[in-house]
Amino acid sequence: MSAHDDPYLIISSDCHAGLPTERYRPYLESRFHRDFDEFLAGRDRRREEMTRLGVRNEAFADRWFRENEEGLRGGWDTAQRLKELDGDGVAAEVVFPDADAVDSRTAAPFGVGLGLSGDQDPELGMAGAQAHNRWLAEFVSEHPERHCGVALLPVTAPVDRVVAEIRRARESGLGALMIPAMWAGQEPYHDRRYDPVWAAAAECGMPVLTHSGAAPRHEYGDHLGIYVSEVTWWPARPLWFLLWSGVFERHPGLRFGVAESGCWWLPNLLWFMDRLYLGAHGGKKLSPFEELRRPPHEYLDRQIFVCATNTKRRELAQRYEIGVDNILWGSDFPHPEGTWPDTRAWLRRTFHDIPVAETRRMLGLAAAEVFGFDTGKLAPLARRIGPTPAGLGQPADQAAVEASWARSRESGRHWLTDGDFPLLGPDHDFPLPEATR
Amino acid sequence: MSAHDDPYLIISSDCHAGLPTERYRPYLESRFHRDFDEFLAGRDRRREEMTRLGVRNEAFADRWFRENEEGLRGGWDTAQRLKELDGDGVAAEVVFPDADAVDSRTAAPFGVGLGLSGDQDPELGMAGAQAHNRWLAEFVSEHPERHCGVALLPVTAPVDRVVAEIRRARESGLGALMIPAMWAGQEPYHDRRYDPVWAAAAECGMPVLTHSGAAPRHEYGDHLGIYVSEVTWWPARPLWFLLWSGVFERHPGLRFGVAESGCWWLPNLLWFMDRLYLGAHGGKKLSPFEELRRPPHEYLDRQIFVCATNTKRRELAQRYEIGVDNILWGSDFPHPEGTWPDTRAWLRRTFHDIPVAETRRMLGLAAAEVFGFDTGKLAPLARRIGPTPAGLGQPADQAAVEASWARSRESGRHWLTDGDFPLLGPDHDFPLPEATR
Ligand SMILES: [Mn+2]
Ligand SMILES: [Mn+2]
Ligand SMILES: [Mn+2]
Ligand SMILES: [Mn+2]
Repeated sequence: MSAHDDPYLIISSDCHAGLPTERYRPYLESRFHRDFDEFLAGRDRRREEMTRLGVRNEAFADRWFRENEEGLRGGWDTAQRLKELDGDGVAAEVVFPDADAVDSRTAAPFGVGLGLSGDQDPELGMAGAQAHNRWLAEFVSEHPERHCGVALLPVTAPVDRVVAEIRRARESGLGALMIPAMWAGQEPYHDRRYDPVWAAAAECGMPVLTHSGAAPRHEYGDHLGIYVSEVTWWPARPLWFLLWSGVFERHPGLRFGVAESGCWWLPNLLWFMDRLYLGAHGGKKLSPFEELRRPPHEYLDRQIFVCATNTKRRELAQRYEIGVDNILWGSDFPHPEGTWPDTRAWLRRTFHDIPVAETRRMLGLAAAEVFGFDTGKLAPLARRIGPTPAGLGQPADQAAVEASWARSRESGRHWLTDGDFPLLGPDHDFPLPEATR
Repeated sequence: MSAHDDPYLIISSDCHAGLPTERYRPYLESRFHRDFDEFLAGRDRRREEMTRLGVRNEAFADRWFRENEEGLRGGWDTAQRLKELDGDGVAAEVVFPDADAVDSRTAAPFGVGLGLSGDQDPELGMAGAQAHNRWLAEFVSEHPERHCGVALLPVTAPVDRVVAEIRRARESGLGALMIPAMWAGQEPYHDRRYDPVWAAAAECGMPVLTHSGAAPRHEYGDHLGIYVSEVTWWPARPLWFLLWSGVFERHPGLRFGVAESGCWWLPNLLWFMDRLYLGAHGGKKLSPFEELRRPPHEYLDRQIFVCATNTKRRELAQRYEIGVDNILWGSDFPHPEGTWPDTRAWLRRTFHDIPVAETRRMLGLAAAEVFGFDTGKLAPLARRIGPTPAGLGQPADQAAVEASWARSRESGRHWLTDGDFPLLGPDHDFPLPEATR
């Protein structure tokens, strides 16, 4: 078999699973059951609130559930889920909470899923997180090679409880940690109080993640556009809090990722931070950065990644600035803003002129390294379900494809290679083979 | 005289002036003098706070004031100022507060300069703003054709007082309005309570601006990198609050600008907002945007601009996405992060391969339109002090320069021109004339 017919090992770095909310009860300590009843009673009110902000559209919701009833059961039903993943060609996945992004019918207790926030009640927050984490550990245990379960971690809680939950989650079979994008009134993430948390995460080999969702909605009125315009900024924000406070220097084993927030913002941020550190003009009145020993891009390449979900062509054009290995694709199953159930067609539209070797990294191999998937165990499955480069419309003449991107690849991060400008997109001096156009 | 030898009319859209703080007293209503004494007494404490955060560097400050003593008097001394502007080739300027960005010796009363914020005491905030505005009106009155004074506008104060201050400022000869980048605990800028403010600003022909400075510093500890990484985001934020809440639709005469926050963030924001509005894939569960009648880029081109200050080469490469006419250059005189006193050399390094016609727009003509400068009155001065295209190293063969950028210019905002990728930088199929390399 030629490389051109060798199926991709696809790992979605951003998927979601969650029980229909009322079914979390047995996973929740009984002393919280009364609070849980109150939480359940507030569901209609919360749905109305989402409708008011425009995040929820009644007509869309009706159609979505009607047309996808069977597949959506994959949000909590393993057998159905595997069928959906197979259909999309996805061999393995990283599992965040909140399967239902339309009506929140699978919200974790006390809303600690994607809405996990520093301003939650500390007791309830930890109780809700543990309930989800217990269920999720069961859920991923049936086919552990195909799932990396993301434990919910209310990191602003007392530090010993947080560290204990990390170890408990690890022992239960979960593989990563999601912290709130917003610390609200609690200590920001540069604070040294969190050092034992980062150390425990590194020691357990569990990447720490944020995922888009939380935002200061009370500031938005009913203007959906405001929310969407900045909802990706809040989960990215911890990145520069951790970086500039030296967390990546002190914890070289820590991995940090930002999920479902795109990666279009990363090149500018990196350019900005590198120039600041390397002594740009604008910095001449500023003090040095003592807690870092190397420029920001070195920490990025060593410890930071982006679960970029349904990557856009504009973003892929910037992959040599972002770093190909820092971009982890995801289907966002079973969310409507993701690529399911049409992932194969979507991949073809998006990756047809991207070099196969790079596509393999972004679609799976980079995620396998970050999250510790066993590619050997997954290989037979991938060979059975994965699309091939030919299936994505990628030409057999990969030398020509590689050549078309050489100029952009060699320029790379132009501020480090003496270039003035970003060089994006394929070079038309090297026309691509017919198939890719 | 050929166009190549025709000097540029340069307008800096971002300069600063302010009195040494204690000299604001006569401009402040006497009933606030006791509060003013308290404010003056707190200067050392505030300077220590800036040093702690790393924004202030003792050694740099000493050298800066020693080496630039004479020129820095131009922060409040008109004769000295004109000498400095002439030296830089700057014919006219937009005048923000806080001449001293190093030691804050020219802070407006009660810190309402660049630190203007929604959480100021409403009485003191308005009193301090009026003191600065009164002085600034005097300051610009000596050579009104060369200065557009920016009035400080504590926009979260009671709306009738705010509107009255707009009209007072206009009558006193000021030409623009600076609002706080952050509303803090007050109503966000989408709120309808501000409609009379936007209407008055439009009616008076006064552009509304934010300028970088304010940020939630209490969240940063002593980590300067965090501050710098997000300090440009906060002044940009009102842009999407105004846009999505329909302010630009309801007030087509309103102009809004963001100062000293770069313009590198604008292409991604615009791409993101346009796609959202035009019905992108990710939006299929979202409601429509009723308060807008056209896509975001139309409001941008009609009503929004960026005082991009010392534009970077990376930013200029993106000018066809941003819109050439939306980029207003500035020297930031007399701030150390600006181009003064080496503006001529700086312009040569930055603009040598940019088409002359576009350079004329970005260096002055776009600002003249936005802020209402009389280019006829400024022309003789510009002919005397302005650098020429030849002086900036721009080749006489402008047809070749234009051709080198044709691919990028024609691609423009690729999401509107059916392109997948941004095409940035000159096209090497059309080599630039020798002079520009
Ligand atoms: Mn997701
Ligand atoms: Mn999603
Ligand atoms: Mn400025
Ligand atoms: Mn400045």
